[in-house]
Amino acid sequence: MVGGGFGGLLLARELAQAGARGQPVEVTLIDQRNHHTFQPLLYQVATAGLQPQDIGISLRATLRRHAPQIRLGEVVDIDPDAHTVTLADDSSVTYDRLVLAAGAVSTDLGLPGVADHSFGLKSLADATAVRNHVLRRFELASHDPDAHEDGSLTFVIAGGGPTGVELAGALAELVTLVVSRDHPDLDTSRVRIVLVEVMDRLLGGFSSRSAEQARRELERRGVEVRLGTGIAETTDTHVTFDDGEVLLARTLVWAAGVAASPLAQTLGVELGPGGRLPVDRRLRVEGVEDVHAIGDIALGLDDDGEPLPQVAPVAIQHGRYLSQLIQDELAREPTRPFTYRDKGTMATVGRSAAVAELPNGLRFGGFPAWIAWLVLHLWMLIGFKNRVGVLFSWFWNYLFRDHAARLIVDQREAGGRGAADDSSAATAPPEP
Amino acid sequence: MVGGGFGGLLLARELAQAGARGQPVEVTLIDQRNHHTFQPLLYQVATAGLQPQDIGISLRATLRRHAPQIRLGEVVDIDPDAHTVTLADDSSVTYDRLVLAAGAVSTDLGLPGVADHSFGLKSLADATAVRNHVLRRFELASHDPDAHEDGSLTFVIAGGGPTGVELAGALAELVTLVVSRDHPDLDTSRVRIVLVEVMDRLLGGFSSRSAEQARRELERRGVEVRLGTGIAETTDTHVTFDDGEVLLARTLVWAAGVAASPLAQTLGVELGPGGRLPVDRRLRVEGVEDVHAIGDIALGLDDDGEPLPQVAPVAIQHGRYLSQLIQDELAREPTRPFTYRDKGTMATVGRSAAVAELPNGLRFGGFPAWIAWLVLHLWMLIGFKNRVGVLFSWFWNYLFRDHAARLIVDQREAGGRGAADDSSAATAPPEP
Repeated sequence: MVGGGFGGLLLARELAQAGARGQPVEVTLIDQRNHHTFQPLLYQVATAGLQPQDIGISLRATLRRHAPQIRLGEVVDIDPDAHTVTLADDSSVTYDRLVLAAGAVSTDLGLPGVADHSFGLKSLADATAVRNHVLRRFELASHDPDAHEDGSLTFVIAGGGPTGVELAGALAELVTLVVSRDHPDLDTSRVRIVLVEVMDRLLGGFSSRSAEQARRELERRGVEVRLGTGIAETTDTHVTFDDGEVLLARTLVWAAGVAASPLAQTLGVELGPGGRLPVDRRLRVEGVEDVHAIGDIALGLDDDGEPLPQVAPVAIQHGRYLSQLIQDELAREPTRPFTYRDKGTMATVGRSAAVAELPNGLRFGGFPAWIAWLVLHLWMLIGFKNRVGVLFSWFWNYLFRDHAARLIVDQREAGGRGAADDSSAATAPPEP
Repeated sequence: MVGGGFGGLLLARELAQAGARGQPVEVTLIDQRNHHTFQPLLYQVATAGLQPQDIGISLRATLRRHAPQIRLGEVVDIDPDAHTVTLADDSSVTYDRLVLAAGAVSTDLGLPGVADHSFGLKSLADATAVRNHVLRRFELASHDPDAHEDGSLTFVIAGGGPTGVELAGALAELVTLVVSRDHPDLDTSRVRIVLVEVMDRLLGGFSSRSAEQARRELERRGVEVRLGTGIAETTDTHVTFDDGEVLLARTLVWAAGVAASPLAQTLGVELGPGGRLPVDRRLRVEGVEDVHAIGDIALGLDDDGEPLPQVAPVAIQHGRYLSQLIQDELAREPTRPFTYRDKGTMATVGRSAAVAELPNGLRFGGFPAWIAWLVLHLWMLIGFKNRVGVLFSWFWNYLFRDHAARLIVDQREAGGRGAADDSSAATAPPEP
């Protein structure tokens, strides 16, 4: 099993439990990182609302009771005939059945400069880098008057989906509630937060009423929302829009496109849109034996033949279904095909403001939606200690309008071997 | 004022408060980092017992009420005639009175390889690097049998002072309580933790009875204590002792020597042992006008003419004294010379085990000393939120013998611009 995200972690746990109950299952979970990342809250780490560790959960800790094999490493190749995966350190692991749950990565859509000059938001390392960078812009601007003019205080967020909307809202609150008090010398009216979306509306998956409500809430918080605008090019110092306008900006966060993990390409099958692996209703990768794909890397279809979205609920339902399927197959019992149950969707814009839509058409916003959002995310978060940590941070931030997580901790400033050590855990140490 | 450690932070706060009360004081605090680091607990971050953010406190948050100027940057030069300090980004700050509170740095004592191949333990970045490195050794060894032989499981700690002793004890507990359960495949009896001290006893500042007690407690936890042994040379793969023995070891943490911050050298005065700035009983740097030095960078003498140790209580008493001195001078009132009051010293070896000594000769160990150590460190820690966070982590670790902080978060794995951005906040952004 490759990947410890929502789907992979759930499947690993359920199958390991089945193994502990005596079923003939042995589980090996391979992940590049030693922790599950609660991606829906990465934007709060990027805006210093939460600590990175609040939403990172040690895989070995959470899986400790039923202890599947856990292997830290990056899968670089798959040989379906030999039933073997190869890791970056040239070791290999054989499988009877392989589940690809490697998720999605940011894609620059081929736009010049985006890969090198924008920040991603897919891992704790990404979110920490955004936080450090953003806090440093304010530090710089509070003593360097030029920084008010050179784009240091202009933050561009590309992509008007939930991630972009939530990040823009949280950044606006960071400025209003925290930066304005931390940096009395800084004229926060010079801060510009620009949310760019190539479509003519925000939140593509939501109703247009919710999208409009989100846009109004963002604008009320000082975010400039530019719809129908794409990004043509970027450098470290400016962003060029597709209408030719050049904006001085030293921060571009890329939330505009995701593609399936490049791991999908190693299977040699024809990929669907977004580089995703087409799967059948039993989540088997079409054309490859004994390989399943779940979550963001998979391209599954709903009952109407429409592709399922790349969201956490699909990954979770995939994981749960596949666990059942594998156990049923071992017991030689039949399993119904996978059906996705849409449970609705929500996005938060800021304190006391969110939009939520249920599949029955019910929609609500404002404070009730925000509370629902808080409860749902706490409930989805894995690990009691993490729940307590997040809850405490949220209470603290809400009551004191303070973001205690605003530390700039940059590992590359470590002394001695610390700064250069171990660019990847998958790499074997140097030989003597 | 340069440096937001124990002394600098206290002085900045007290003087800013005096300024707020109407006294003619304006305070500018310059620090390389945007947070105060509670250095006495860095070793717990290095061993995944605490989160980095538990012991990092935003300077702007803690000084918010009386808001002195805060400047993020590295001081690289001082011109005492012009009353000016120059920062790494070539900007400068003028002063009426300068207080150097820049602390101490690790020193390799000129030993070959130490600067490049050992880990320091002076900042959150250092401690995070140690944590990532150590956790990765266990990940590697749990699937690679060679790693049991090549020194991946051998951890050398140089220096038998409190930092080395506490780190060795905490690492031993990480192995016994956490690694043994996280990595059932790993033979933890192959893990070696070697504490090396060049003197013939541990804990130089303590009585020999306490030192002996600490040695016994460490050995009971499986730590190999090598006294009277120095390190001659090191690489990434082995450590050579001064008796010629070569030990395969892929981890060396350097806690064997500190020197005053290199900033002391820019003043052009003759430095004392350890590169420290000799100060008189009013904490003035001898031979330079309007410059004070406090804490680890200063070389002060006690009533008997002996140099004061480089420990937190000296820095704190320095900060408090200098605040009073400056206010008295403004009010044209006399101030007595600085006198250090020794309040005792303590070090913890692990769960329920510590040694403590009071200046009246009273010494105690075991559980009472450990509780005293916990209470004292919680009390010294600045910031209510940090205290709650540390207390919660300690309870959690104690009750569940679990270290939830064992995440490997490596910023250099960030995508796009994240990995390469901003090697230092003091660096001006690139021009367009």
